[in-house]
Amino acid sequence: MNSVSEAMVREAAERIRPLARRTPVMTSLSVDSRAGSQVFFKCENLQRGGAFKIRGAANLVLSIPKADLPRGVVAFSSGNHAQGTAIAARYAGTAATIVMPEDAPRSKMEATRDRGARIVTYNRFTDDREAIAAAVLSETNGTLVPPFDHPLIIAGQGTTALELMEEIPDLDALVVCVGGGGLISGCATIAKAIKPSLRIFGVEPELANDTWQSFRKGSHVTIPSPDTIADGLRSPSPGKLTFPIIQELVEDIVLVSEDEIRATVRLLLERMKLLVEPSGAVGAAAVLFGKIPQGLRRVGVVISGGNVDLEFLSTC
Amino acid sequence: MNSVSEAMVREAAERIRPLARRTPVMTSLSVDSRAGSQVFFKCENLQRGGAFKIRGAANLVLSIPKADLPRGVVAFSSGNHAQGTAIAARYAGTAATIVMPEDAPRSKMEATRDRGARIVTYNRFTDDREAIAAAVLSETNGTLVPPFDHPLIIAGQGTTALELMEEIPDLDALVVCVGGGGLISGCATIAKAIKPSLRIFGVEPELANDTWQSFRKGSHVTIPSPDTIADGLRSPSPGKLTFPIIQELVEDIVLVSEDEIRATVRLLLERMKLLVEPSGAVGAAAVLFGKIPQGLRRVGVVISGGNVDLEFLSTC
Repeated sequence: MNSVSEAMVREAAERIRPLARRTPVMTSLSVDSRAGSQVFFKCENLQRGGAFKIRGAANLVLSIPKADLPRGVVAFSSGNHAQGTAIAARYAGTAATIVMPEDAPRSKMEATRDRGARIVTYNRFTDDREAIAAAVLSETNGTLVPPFDHPLIIAGQGTTALELMEEIPDLDALVVCVGGGGLISGCATIAKAIKPSLRIFGVEPELANDTWQSFRKGSHVTIPSPDTIADGLRSPSPGKLTFPIIQELVEDIVLVSEDEIRATVRLLLERMKLLVEPSGAVGAAAVLFGKIPQGLRRVGVVISGGNVDLEFLSTC
Repeated sequence: MNSVSEAMVREAAERIRPLARRTPVMTSLSVDSRAGSQVFFKCENLQRGGAFKIRGAANLVLSIPKADLPRGVVAFSSGNHAQGTAIAARYAGTAATIVMPEDAPRSKMEATRDRGARIVTYNRFTDDREAIAAAVLSETNGTLVPPFDHPLIIAGQGTTALELMEEIPDLDALVVCVGGGGLISGCATIAKAIKPSLRIFGVEPELANDTWQSFRKGSHVTIPSPDTIADGLRSPSPGKLTFPIIQELVEDIVLVSEDEIRATVRLLLERMKLLVEPSGAVGAAAVLFGKIPQGLRRVGVVISGGNVDLEFLSTC
């Protein structure tokens, strides 16, 4: 059962227009010859805030009733969703409180603070995150901006595929990374509405295969906290709203190894001159390392983000 | 006196259409706030072969009379011009011989060989490059594809600015790196024809300031072989054809330091997720480090290429 409709994605596209960039679609002959398909990369690493997350966050924040805006918004994230929420909140003229583990990368903390957000930290090992959440929300009475499991978030992320299919209408397949599943469920909703024959594949790191397991079992599986280098895909289980959409619209979930992710980050940088974070590279890795069916002629791949410390590159 | 016309650049744009990519124009709010202007980057690092060089090379190679094609083409380059020429030659169905110093980076040699070119090496310290050139040309009787000082090369490079101004018509200034001067003289020719009030600035590394010196003296100055990290801008003097165009159409040549180039490569990677080679970053460096006049509202900057060994990044 899909809590998101084609119309909701199209409405999101209108709503977020002033905030989210229409990112370019890039191609590479050297990728094509390795992949054996024509590959079209939707470059959300070139999105505002360096990732697709601004799309969903903006769609939710810009839907908040005017009367509720003065109480602000709250998000829990150490990563791209924090920045997306902070950017959207500043644009909407409301205060953002971002709850982060105190050992989050300093660069991401600073980037979020630069966007005007207030940061509340907690200790991942000793503090109860749910209690922190409840405390912050009851203190501010603000609006929670969840990272993926909300119809407005899912619809916002779906605008990524809407733009891609407007530009490249005759795709045979779409390949999208899977963390909590917000991006792929939004993309699948709009893409299947536009072209029902489109084949959609999700990609997870082998080390964070919660959706792969859940998909095979037919029900939610929760795994121990994954430690893949793809830090944006470390969710331990698919969402309540996202998983049914994945079950309904996605043909398969495939897995890529840590080495395949590293090699893909390097290849995208060397050959396409694009800085892509490990999470953002898993879709490309699936295409480059033969994880999706052969013989697909035209394949769209979402590059979800580019926020990575440059020091990481020396390990690729 | 300008050996290149607006019409020649427009003809070049038609001629190279099957080979050169229409590269995206990118913006960054964080760059804008540092620069104090709206900055529009024309991303030739995302061009085929990783640099603008394919434009000029394709324009010349695709102009060779059919009867001359079987004798092949010859270029002298250890860098981006080699790849541009090899790609254009393969497309035209003619053989490319590239003459390179034997200590050229292995990656660039391999990339050129991958494009189907024959490579002839020479020893930079003991061999006479002119003699090698003469020997290769008399052996093959092929067509020479010079790196910058030819009207068809200049006109081809000018298509970069033609595309930028088609997309962003109301620029106040255009900032372009200067090596031999092919890119800036082609860009200035078409840009001034489209908008005579446009202010054009050239940028060189302080360590390779031959055009800066020549511009001030009013005649060609030759400097000792420069050793800037911007390896694409190491030409020791401006071209015979390019320099008069620069004198006529460019308002000023400005200089950037090696540290400013390094910091800009890093900033473009971190903030814009774009891999830019040092030569390609000097225009952005000029804008970021206040080398061009203040108060310019909308500034176009050409990012000329992105071919850099990833090891270099650890020095930025």
